[in-house]
Amino acid sequence: MAKQKKAPRPKAVTPKGFRDYFGAEVTQRAEMLRTIAGVYHRYGFEALESSAVETVEALGKFLPDVDRPNEGVFAWQEADVPGGGAGDWLALRYDLTAPLARVYAQHRNELPTPYRRYAMGPVWRNEKPGPGRFRQFYQCDADTVGSGSVAADAEICAMLADTLEAVGIPRGYYVVRVNNRKVLNGVLEAMGLAEDEERSAAVMRTIDKFDKVGEAGVRELLGKGRLDASGAYIDGVGLTEEQAEPVIALLTARTRLNEIGPDQDPAISYNTVVLNTLSQLVPATGEGMKGVEELMQIANLLAAQGYGPDRIVIDPSVVRGLGYYTGPVFEAELTFEITDEKGRPRQFGSVAGGGRYDDLVKRFTGQEVPATGVSIGVDRLLAALHAKGRMQAETQGPVVVTVMDRDRMADYQAMVAELRNAGIRAEVYLGNPKNFGNQLKYADKRNSPVAIIEGGDEKEKGIVQIKDLVLGAKIAETASLEEWKDRPSQFEVPRDQMVAKVQDILKGQGQ
Amino acid sequence: MAKQKKAPRPKAVTPKGFRDYFGAEVTQRAEMLRTIAGVYHRYGFEALESSAVETVEALGKFLPDVDRPNEGVFAWQEADVPGGGAGDWLALRYDLTAPLARVYAQHRNELPTPYRRYAMGPVWRNEKPGPGRFRQFYQCDADTVGSGSVAADAEICAMLADTLEAVGIPRGYYVVRVNNRKVLNGVLEAMGLAEDEERSAAVMRTIDKFDKVGEAGVRELLGKGRLDASGAYIDGVGLTEEQAEPVIALLTARTRLNEIGPDQDPAISYNTVVLNTLSQLVPATGEGMKGVEELMQIANLLAAQGYGPDRIVIDPSVVRGLGYYTGPVFEAELTFEITDEKGRPRQFGSVAGGGRYDDLVKRFTGQEVPATGVSIGVDRLLAALHAKGRMQAETQGPVVVTVMDRDRMADYQAMVAELRNAGIRAEVYLGNPKNFGNQLKYADKRNSPVAIIEGGDEKEKGIVQIKDLVLGAKIAETASLEEWKDRPSQFEVPRDQMVAKVQDILKGQGQ
Repeated sequence: MAKQKKAPRPKAVTPKGFRDYFGAEVTQRAEMLRTIAGVYHRYGFEALESSAVETVEALGKFLPDVDRPNEGVFAWQEADVPGGGAGDWLALRYDLTAPLARVYAQHRNELPTPYRRYAMGPVWRNEKPGPGRFRQFYQCDADTVGSGSVAADAEICAMLADTLEAVGIPRGYYVVRVNNRKVLNGVLEAMGLAEDEERSAAVMRTIDKFDKVGEAGVRELLGKGRLDASGAYIDGVGLTEEQAEPVIALLTARTRLNEIGPDQDPAISYNTVVLNTLSQLVPATGEGMKGVEELMQIANLLAAQGYGPDRIVIDPSVVRGLGYYTGPVFEAELTFEITDEKGRPRQFGSVAGGGRYDDLVKRFTGQEVPATGVSIGVDRLLAALHAKGRMQAETQGPVVVTVMDRDRMADYQAMVAELRNAGIRAEVYLGNPKNFGNQLKYADKRNSPVAIIEGGDEKEKGIVQIKDLVLGAKIAETASLEEWKDRPSQFEVPRDQMVAKVQDILKGQGQ
Repeated sequence: MAKQKKAPRPKAVTPKGFRDYFGAEVTQRAEMLRTIAGVYHRYGFEALESSAVETVEALGKFLPDVDRPNEGVFAWQEADVPGGGAGDWLALRYDLTAPLARVYAQHRNELPTPYRRYAMGPVWRNEKPGPGRFRQFYQCDADTVGSGSVAADAEICAMLADTLEAVGIPRGYYVVRVNNRKVLNGVLEAMGLAEDEERSAAVMRTIDKFDKVGEAGVRELLGKGRLDASGAYIDGVGLTEEQAEPVIALLTARTRLNEIGPDQDPAISYNTVVLNTLSQLVPATGEGMKGVEELMQIANLLAAQGYGPDRIVIDPSVVRGLGYYTGPVFEAELTFEITDEKGRPRQFGSVAGGGRYDDLVKRFTGQEVPATGVSIGVDRLLAALHAKGRMQAETQGPVVVTVMDRDRMADYQAMVAELRNAGIRAEVYLGNPKNFGNQLKYADKRNSPVAIIEGGDEKEKGIVQIKDLVLGAKIAETASLEEWKDRPSQFEVPRDQMVAKVQDILKGQGQ
């Protein structure tokens, strides 16, 4: 044996936590992004595409305090600078908000103020992948930088409602829930927890669980603790029942909708009831009351444009995890039921969220720049539309012109050119044409609506055979052999009527 | 002073060689990609979006032979695997072809054969950035994997011509040039250089310079060498004049178009003349002659679909740099002149290229899989359309509803809601409304067509003021103060006629 070592073949696999997207998965997402961009544009927002790569320094949270800052982001170090000095640490962006703050700080002298921008594209997270959790996914954001007005927050909420309807979620099947961090802080202040960061955080986490565990569950979690559905015991915050009461009142404010009489305007009454409740839960002066007033302004601005609580609702139970929010926060939830992987019905849940963050640009410039925005989880929204049966998993394949005679490829190419010029998706079979069965199997795999056959006999007679593959498949599925013989799914037409006949068949198939 | 050190503020800059894209730069590219995808789809190609991140192993060329494989790609090492073993090296893709080979090898059992796919997205190169050269840029590819037929190559060429016309390059302003690596190899064989890799490569590089240095220049470069325009002396390949003759004949084959008589079909005659010339330059049997035959088939297939040499032309001077091409190669060139940065007219040049590569999938599977494809340089194509004046640098801004009375924000929001519902891009000014001049400056910066004003007086009278900002700017530019006074660019209309009047004005502006 010779000593030569053959290089081993590389493995054909995506890196762990990454995946490929095929066909309809790509085009449906592209179409959705285009629709969303259309709504954002109509609201006056401008497109921005920042680079996928940022300096680790600009990204912030992930400063390299160890040799390799690979916590949370994918990062690497540039080559050393010629003539001395270590290269910069670079990283893939983990969201679209941190790059916006960098872009605004960098270009603020050329950009209009306020700067309304939208951005859509992949972001990357260096996290442990799990089922359905990928390390690259799409975000689709809109933000207004440089406006401290709650009108900017209200506008984002209205735009979010419009966007959901534009992509195909009917009115009544979603709700945008709005809250204000200042109100939550005010309630914590009233409870005497303003200085107790640890218990404040625990209360916030508990509020966030309201949807899952309900009022009784929250009472337990705020008090002594709770036995989980899985049998695990979850420690409580340790508040007395009296101490916990403001939180319960906050969370159940929304249910007082029932108290509204039949002859009252539900939109105005609802906001009045909820906001009255909240104003009694926060100290009479200070941040909490300011938060209630902001919510009132938002509700009024939205009511003036016709957005009632059926679309956008004040909901004191919304928290939003991110630490950087400083005022209004919002979340869009789909309210219809889907069937989960275990066959149980469940609510689809959140597909978008955002809020006001006033400190992100300050990191760069030292000056506070108010900002508010929303991020839509496009992949979740697509999943929702699929679950709701509003989107087909596969797209229609092309008409396939089969190759009966390898030497007449030019004839077949001329056929597809004719079909394409009539706006019909079409292609010639370009595999090995020897086995005709393989050509039909290919058409089947491509989900083709029609196959066209022109052998020597047909050529001589000046005709083509046209197979309706959709009808053919239906017949094969449902009819006995006898019936099959009687139902034509294959037609013989003069060559010069090929395009017209294909158009007929496609129309009949509902294309 | 306390010892506390304040963390220094991060710099708000893109990493070296990266840039941000704003507004029309983003939307025009998105629109172009959508148009191209439409053509590819009509030809039967399916979308594929592979992950931006690949294992360095799968990317191939850049295997980590040193500690940090940062030659050419942006690469990093995953964290060590728990329980032992070093993490994989990952990298950002540098093109869309290497990921296609990986995807096809990985999913070949589920994918149809042939597999026609298109892909569009950013790719990353870890190269030294230069003026106009960025380390992240877009590619837009279409490939047919699993077909060895030259019909697949011909189809790609036809699709490329259709695509260029679809994005706005008129017929006659571009040409797709087709050659075959086998012909070039045949000529080298006839010259006795088949085994001389070094001189073969030098001859190929010289052929590639034909467009720049012309016939005389090529003669010099194949012989003793040549004094460059910059004054530098370029060493020649060292061939005798006789040895160099086949290359000259190859390069000038295209110019024999003049020999075609006026009563001959130029399409057929042209191909005949060029291909006859080529067949005399390669050995009578072997690879070169096979290449000539393939070109003949491609020319015939294209002629049958009506693509003559005015759109797609056999051109023996096309080389294409990439080493992996094994058969037909093609290049799309824009033939119109633009003015370069120094004010000199020059040809715009190449915007797309591709060819047949039959070995890329083999790396993974051991089996040869024939493939052919094209890559369009979308950013260059956009630059061409801008240079040709076929695209505006800026998009129309939104109608701006100004804020005269901060307390009536709800009224102003209702106005923009009405405008948007009529399909008009509109927004309320959300900055500090105190200084009205700033609001108009903002509208100017946004390139707004119309501003709307409703102060207390207007509100009382039930009217609004509508400013035609496009007309206003024109008057300000061209008219004297007297004329300015007489030409109304501001209108007073009843509030309920606001939308109709804005529509009128936009129509008058040519929206």
